[in-house]
Amino acid sequence: MESFSGQVGRRIPQEWTSSRPRAQRALELADRLRRRIGAGDFDEGVPEEIALAAEMGASRNAVREALGLLREEGLIVRRRGVGTSVVRPQYGHGLDRLAGLAEILADSGTVTNEVLAAEVVAEVPEPFAARLNLPAGVPAVYIERVRRLNGMPLSLDITYLTGDIGAAVLDGDLAGRDVFALIEEATGAPLGHAELTVHAANANTDVAAVLDIPPGTAIFTIERLTHLADGRPVDAETLHIRADRMALHATVHRGRTTRSS
Amino acid sequence: MESFSGQVGRRIPQEWTSSRPRAQRALELADRLRRRIGAGDFDEGVPEEIALAAEMGASRNAVREALGLLREEGLIVRRRGVGTSVVRPQYGHGLDRLAGLAEILADSGTVTNEVLAAEVVAEVPEPFAARLNLPAGVPAVYIERVRRLNGMPLSLDITYLTGDIGAAVLDGDLAGRDVFALIEEATGAPLGHAELTVHAANANTDVAAVLDIPPGTAIFTIERLTHLADGRPVDAETLHIRADRMALHATVHRGRTTRSS
Repeated sequence: MESFSGQVGRRIPQEWTSSRPRAQRALELADRLRRRIGAGDFDEGVPEEIALAAEMGASRNAVREALGLLREEGLIVRRRGVGTSVVRPQYGHGLDRLAGLAEILADSGTVTNEVLAAEVVAEVPEPFAARLNLPAGVPAVYIERVRRLNGMPLSLDITYLTGDIGAAVLDGDLAGRDVFALIEEATGAPLGHAELTVHAANANTDVAAVLDIPPGTAIFTIERLTHLADGRPVDAETLHIRADRMALHATVHRGRTTRSS
Repeated sequence: MESFSGQVGRRIPQEWTSSRPRAQRALELADRLRRRIGAGDFDEGVPEEIALAAEMGASRNAVREALGLLREEGLIVRRRGVGTSVVRPQYGHGLDRLAGLAEILADSGTVTNEVLAAEVVAEVPEPFAARLNLPAGVPAVYIERVRRLNGMPLSLDITYLTGDIGAAVLDGDLAGRDVFALIEEATGAPLGHAELTVHAANANTDVAAVLDIPPGTAIFTIERLTHLADGRPVDAETLHIRADRMALHATVHRGRTTRSS
C-alpha cells in the first residue's frame, strides 16, 4: 500500500470519495474477481488493469490491490510483459484408486491436520448411521479435521468410524496421518473399496470460514463410504474440498460398444 | 398466489410496506434458499415456514411463495405432517465408464439437445488445440449444445472434434444423439478411453442463463478428452453441468497396501 503522507492538495482519486475504507473495497473486489476466476471468466488470461477497472466499475488502484491479494493466495501469476494468468488448481485427486490426502500429496508437501473433534458419540446422524449399517443407539467414533497442505487449508473432513476400529484410530496420530493409514494399522490389512458421490456446492458460512474462502464459493462435497477388504463398511465421510486448489481426475474406458441414441 | 380483492381495511402485512413488488421478493428469497440448499444447510430437513421466515428476515407469505417455487423446480418436496425436505440430485453420472449423457440417462427420460453452434472453425482456442494435438491453423469442428432431460437443462457442452470424424458428426442428428454415438457410427468402431478433470465452479452469468440457475450457483465444469481405440485424441470437451440435478459417482479400490503418513 502506498504512503499518503504529504499529499495535501493532490487530486483526490475517485475511490476516496466513497465512505468505505480503501482496503475494504480491495477485499470486496478480490472476492468478485475470485468468483469470476472460479467461473472460468479469465481462463484465456486476466485483462489489463485499466480494462478490468472499467469492466468492474472500480478504480485502477483498487484493481491492482485486489490482484495483489489474489497473487498472494496463489490464484494468479503476474509476469511483466506477459500479463496476468490464472493458476489452475495445483493439486489433483485421482478417482481411479482409493487413497488418503497425505498419500496423494506426498510429493507436494506436508499434510497436517487440525483436529476439531475426535470422540466417541452416542448419537450418529441418520445419513451416516444408515451408510455404516449402525442400529439406532450404537455409538461410533466422530472425527472432524481441517486438512492443510504446507499450512494452506484444503479440506474439512467429517468422519464417522465403527466400533473397535474407530477406537483404535482415536489413539493414533490424527494430526499427522491419514485415517486410512490408521485403519490399516489397526486392522493389519489393506482396506477394500469405497463408493464416492461427488457434489459441487456453494460453501456455507461455517465451511467457508474453516476453509478461508468467501461464503458461496464453489467447493467439492464428497460423500465417501469406505469398506474393509471383507466388504464391511467402516468409514463414512463427508469431505468439503477447496475447488480452487484441488481438481478431481479420472481415466475412463469405453466398456462396451453402445449404439444408444 | 392469493387473491387480494375485497380486502379493504385488512391489516397490511409487513412485506407490503416495502417498495419492491412481492413476486420479486419471493424470487430473491428463493435464490437465497437455493444457495443454502446447495450448501447443504437443509440436509437434515427444511425448517418450518415460521422459523424460516424469522431466520431469513422475511415474511411467512414470502417464504411460502419461495418454497412453492423451489418445489416446482423439483429441489424440495413438501409432505403434510412430515415437513419439507431437500431432493438430492436425481441423476448420477458414473465415473467408472466412458458414456454419453443420453446413454447414462436412457432409463430416466428423454435427452434432447438444443444446438447453439455446429460448424467448422479455423481458429481453435489454444487449450482445445493443445489437447487435440492440432497444429495452429488446422480447422476443427465446433459444437455447442444445451442438453436437456425431459425438457430441463442439465448441461452446456462445448465440443471440438478433429478432421473427418468431426465433419461426419456434423451431418448426424445432433439434436437427438450423443456425440459419442455419432463418432462411433462415423468410425465403425467403439471409442477408446477418456481423461477427465472435474472442477467445481461458480457459474458465470452466461452459463447460468443457459442452465437457468442464478449466477454464482455451484456447477461441475468437466474437461474431457476422448481418444479413439488407437489412442488418437478426437473429442475435446468442456461440460458445464448443473450440480443440483446431477452428482458424480465412482467406486474406487485400494490399489496396494500403503503405509505413508
